Amino acid sequence: MSADPAITSATRSPLAIIAGGGDFPPRLAEIVTGSGRPLFVAALEGAADPAGFGAADLQSYRLGQLGRLLDELRRRSITELVLIGSLPRPSFAALRPEASTLKYLPHFARAFRGGDDHLLRGVVSFFEGQGFAVHGPADIAPDMTAPIGALGRRMASPEQKALIARGFELLAALSPFDVGQAAILADHRVIAIEAAEGTDAMIRRVADMVASGRLRIAKGDGVLVKAPKDGQDLRVDMPAIGPQTLRNVVAAGLAGIGLRAGRVLVGDAAGLGRLADQSGLFVEGVARDGA
Amino acid sequence: MSADPAITSATRSPLAIIAGGGDFPPRLAEIVTGSGRPLFVAALEGAADPAGFGAADLQSYRLGQLGRLLDELRRRSITELVLIGSLPRPSFAALRPEASTLKYLPHFARAFRGGDDHLLRGVVSFFEGQGFAVHGPADIAPDMTAPIGALGRRMASPEQKALIARGFELLAALSPFDVGQAAILADHRVIAIEAAEGTDAMIRRVADMVASGRLRIAKGDGVLVKAPKDGQDLRVDMPAIGPQTLRNVVAAGLAGIGLRAGRVLVGDAAGLGRLADQSGLFVEGVARDGA
Repeated sequence: MSADPAITSATRSPLAIIAGGGDFPPRLAEIVTGSGRPLFVAALEGAADPAGFGAADLQSYRLGQLGRLLDELRRRSITELVLIGSLPRPSFAALRPEASTLKYLPHFARAFRGGDDHLLRGVVSFFEGQGFAVHGPADIAPDMTAPIGALGRRMASPEQKALIARGFELLAALSPFDVGQAAILADHRVIAIEAAEGTDAMIRRVADMVASGRLRIAKGDGVLVKAPKDGQDLRVDMPAIGPQTLRNVVAAGLAGIGLRAGRVLVGDAAGLGRLADQSGLFVEGVARDGA
Repeated sequence: MSADPAITSATRSPLAIIAGGGDFPPRLAEIVTGSGRPLFVAALEGAADPAGFGAADLQSYRLGQLGRLLDELRRRSITELVLIGSLPRPSFAALRPEASTLKYLPHFARAFRGGDDHLLRGVVSFFEGQGFAVHGPADIAPDMTAPIGALGRRMASPEQKALIARGFELLAALSPFDVGQAAILADHRVIAIEAAEGTDAMIRRVADMVASGRLRIAKGDGVLVKAPKDGQDLRVDMPAIGPQTLRNVVAAGLAGIGLRAGRVLVGDAAGLGRLADQSGLFVEGVARDGA
């Protein structure tokens, strides 16, 4: 249990998970429920699958029903929440605001003008402005992030560790430009750098280059590195990997994955470690001091 | 005419162009011939189109005929050469060494082990070791590089200039990692960074994201920046753009291109400027001091 008084004092107060898609929201719900803390799940329609949350106290909301959601949170005396999960580009129907939501639109109109990062910051500032504390999933469930060391049995070799360290240096150099959550290195050089296309598309690009013979990656060579940018708001915008990331890495012929420990979501670290073992990959969390 | 004595003293000595594919080698041949300097073109089979060189004194060589090429250069008392043009992945047949070439193989086997950059450096060091001076195309024909200022009538706006400057800063930050010849910026952020995929593939990636609705680029927004890496050997590995680059940039919905003046090959600057005008793009050379 954390020594942070802000968290320990709140562990019995109710928590709301505002849930998008993917495996992370049900995983977090399971951990919160397991800790005995009262939980309310607000599942975003078109993103979250309500069936994944088992017996959790759950209601579904369209994005346009923000006003109704706020009313419900207040009715339940919930003051703390976590936003987690993927959010596909919402349909116009999902966005269509109810009357109770109209008054909040100017805030989001302003936030939307600045691009994705601004929008996420706008969502956080909106809930904070409404009197809620917004926690990151890592604050509530640190076990959902990459631990220090190997997630499975396989560990990075010294050469692979050196490639990972170089990758983290690259990402740090990109950070002032607000870009570069991930990169792929092989053959002593940088093969791919992620920008707007996202990590999966970047890995597939490398797989395509290998498949077409444009690029050769020797067995045991090739690593994906992933870390947050400096100043990235880890409460709502934490980098993440999952089973599909590992499958993509295998398809690209890479040897493994280096993650910034504690700062990249992995969901179920043990399960991902087993998948890494089955796939012949290493997946390793690396502390900031390189440990 | 250059004030560099090494160049001025040599302008009447014969020059060899070892020519790969594309428009640059014929363009350089035309400029050299126009200057009155004796020229010999060694066209690499499978890459250069001999017909493109008009009446130039030309012979074709497979890569495996390096020994024969060296003999011919010496027979002609040629001591200076330029390597220019694209080189598709050579076939095994093209590489098959003649007897006169076998003795040079260990040099290239060593160079090949270090990846593309090492290979290019290995080619330069090979010719230098054989007593030849290897010039860059920019040394022989500076007009083939991006000039300072707009190539066509359209100029970058102050906002576009700011985006270009940011792009050059990004490329400079990547340079220590021996990556990053080009990037695309739009909407105040970095959209794509080139690594092993090459500039054209990077631009097409952005076009795909725009086409699929994953990315929106407003009219007048969006720039491609291109510059050499620090320490890049501009004699054999100069960044380049051409008509196809402009067509790709149009397809991606970008507003224009910023190039490091004097350090990116454009071939026919006037022709490219006309194409830029027809395409509604700006193409601008920017000096290192940002002028």
